[in-house]
Amino acid sequence: MKTIHLIQFGLGGVGRALVQRVLAARDDFEWRYGLQFVYIALCDSRGAAIDPDGFSHAQLRAMLAAKEAGQSLENTDWGYKRGGLEDIVDIAGREDAIVIDVTATEETAPALQLALDRGYGAVLANKKPLTGPIEQFRALTSSGRLRYESTVGAGVPVIAALREAIIPSHDAVHRIEGCFSGTLGFLTTGLEEGKAFSDLVAEARALGYTEPDPRDDLGGMDVARKALILARTLGWPLELEHIPIEPLFPPEMAEGTVDDFMAALPRLDASYRERVAAAGRKEKTLRYVATLAGGEVAVGLKEVAKASALGQLRGSDNLIAFHTDVYNQTPLVLQGRGAGVHGTAAGVLADIVALCP
Amino acid sequence: MKTIHLIQFGLGGVGRALVQRVLAARDDFEWRYGLQFVYIALCDSRGAAIDPDGFSHAQLRAMLAAKEAGQSLENTDWGYKRGGLEDIVDIAGREDAIVIDVTATEETAPALQLALDRGYGAVLANKKPLTGPIEQFRALTSSGRLRYESTVGAGVPVIAALREAIIPSHDAVHRIEGCFSGTLGFLTTGLEEGKAFSDLVAEARALGYTEPDPRDDLGGMDVARKALILARTLGWPLELEHIPIEPLFPPEMAEGTVDDFMAALPRLDASYRERVAAAGRKEKTLRYVATLAGGEVAVGLKEVAKASALGQLRGSDNLIAFHTDVYNQTPLVLQGRGAGVHGTAAGVLADIVALCP
Repeated sequence: MKTIHLIQFGLGGVGRALVQRVLAARDDFEWRYGLQFVYIALCDSRGAAIDPDGFSHAQLRAMLAAKEAGQSLENTDWGYKRGGLEDIVDIAGREDAIVIDVTATEETAPALQLALDRGYGAVLANKKPLTGPIEQFRALTSSGRLRYESTVGAGVPVIAALREAIIPSHDAVHRIEGCFSGTLGFLTTGLEEGKAFSDLVAEARALGYTEPDPRDDLGGMDVARKALILARTLGWPLELEHIPIEPLFPPEMAEGTVDDFMAALPRLDASYRERVAAAGRKEKTLRYVATLAGGEVAVGLKEVAKASALGQLRGSDNLIAFHTDVYNQTPLVLQGRGAGVHGTAAGVLADIVALCP
Repeated sequence: MKTIHLIQFGLGGVGRALVQRVLAARDDFEWRYGLQFVYIALCDSRGAAIDPDGFSHAQLRAMLAAKEAGQSLENTDWGYKRGGLEDIVDIAGREDAIVIDVTATEETAPALQLALDRGYGAVLANKKPLTGPIEQFRALTSSGRLRYESTVGAGVPVIAALREAIIPSHDAVHRIEGCFSGTLGFLTTGLEEGKAFSDLVAEARALGYTEPDPRDDLGGMDVARKALILARTLGWPLELEHIPIEPLFPPEMAEGTVDDFMAALPRLDASYRERVAAAGRKEKTLRYVATLAGGEVAVGLKEVAKASALGQLRGSDNLIAFHTDVYNQTPLVLQGRGAGVHGTAAGVLADIVALCP
């Protein structure tokens, strides 16, 4: 039996789903892999809890309950107001530790780098540390001890397909096309069905598919970050600002309150209806697509053939199509639920296991 | 730079494509992974060539040319009439060696076991050693040094999705459905388009999509072997004879020559036309499906919803749909070219790299 020590940054929805999943997997992993996971540190945005001997399952469950009830770790029996994440890495860590980043902030990058320098593993669902300056991406990934499956397509093994199937098979990648936003998938499916753009955004917002400000989804930045991570995984030396991003609203609507934005949306309905109709006359449909080809990446609304993998995609699934030498007539396609706390936590856990000896 | 020694059983189409791919990948793998591959033994069905110091690229190219010209290795300058494969493992081997099985025979199993017992790695595109008695599957896979991605879906990372994404994410698998035969995919697509079954089989045979005797494809045994490998990967203790297999021809047509079989095929056209029509009335279509659910596996022609992933599949691509706790509303789907020497060799090479330190 091998014991692996876990340090987790982030106890939001994904973070809590991950702790629950680690607890639930205990017996399975003991017999299947001979692995036992022990949490030695957990941090949220304000507080931290550290015990180098490991927290009991009862303690972890109590922390989850406190978080569910809206408390910060600093106010629990085991927590305190935290200082720097780097200190936590050094106080809690041991060589066999794995640091897990399920936050959504740049702020974790130095602590991740420190952990890797110390020889720990690191698993990210957080896209920010990998989409800053490329030197940072290279420094973090050069150890070979950092995994980031859940940054693109949640648990759908998109990164693994690239890093562990296509690249080591010496296959040449000609083009990658992906739909990496369930929210924008929901919208484009609805547009294809003839619904009004403004109604669809309102519906997506009401269903909780969008961020509180839907412009955070409609702006395309999250999709661009995912595309950048794929491009860098291919070895392309790109920065976020190299990627043209087409937002689904005009620049003047970027200003103002969310209510202003929602009120202005119906102005866009006619033009989206026309774009869908124009595509339809060519047996095409609209998808919000990240395209990687010839060393360049672009993100935006795109006409795709209705009969293609992207054109057949419906609803909020993610999809990626790899066009390569081997997959030349038809692409290699992966499709599945690309978001949600359970899918994301599942991808993180698979990465953790992959880092274990 | 780390040198890895390769011992390869099989120099048919896949075997030759693999040697070419290893040669072509040389520079890429040196800078990307710091890996250098050296062939120390190659075997075909009659002959072998061994050089513990490694063959030069010129020698390997000459061997490929001789094989392309229809010669056996035993008649080349480097080859001899071979004895047992186990002797080759012992003569050629060193601890860092990887044995590659791209044959299609049971006969390699003892040599693979010996290689694993000696601490080598092993990579299989050959399904036979993994679909014999389950004790043999367990003995071969228990080392953790055997990989077999290309046994199912060629390079499409089907096994990796199961072994390295779904199982270690502690996700519960409820049902797996797969189309694992490009040939049968071609036939069912044609049936859906209204073509006659007998014409489709003749066309598939003329295009080289089938074995010389098309009953080897239409019988379903190859699909059953793939399904068995998936089931055993899930931990299900099944044998090949536990799997009900529906062949696409009646028992009386199993006898007789290929010409007899082809001449008798038109008798089946009306019943297939009726089955397609009956499915169509329910918004369904026919696919040749391997189904894994509840610890049981079945292989046969199945009515699937036209709007499902399987129903949307066209042509000769392979497709697998995983229905799990995480992928509950829509399945996790992988689709791509599931056969052909280049796809299979690509999957084998990715497995080889994965075994390297």
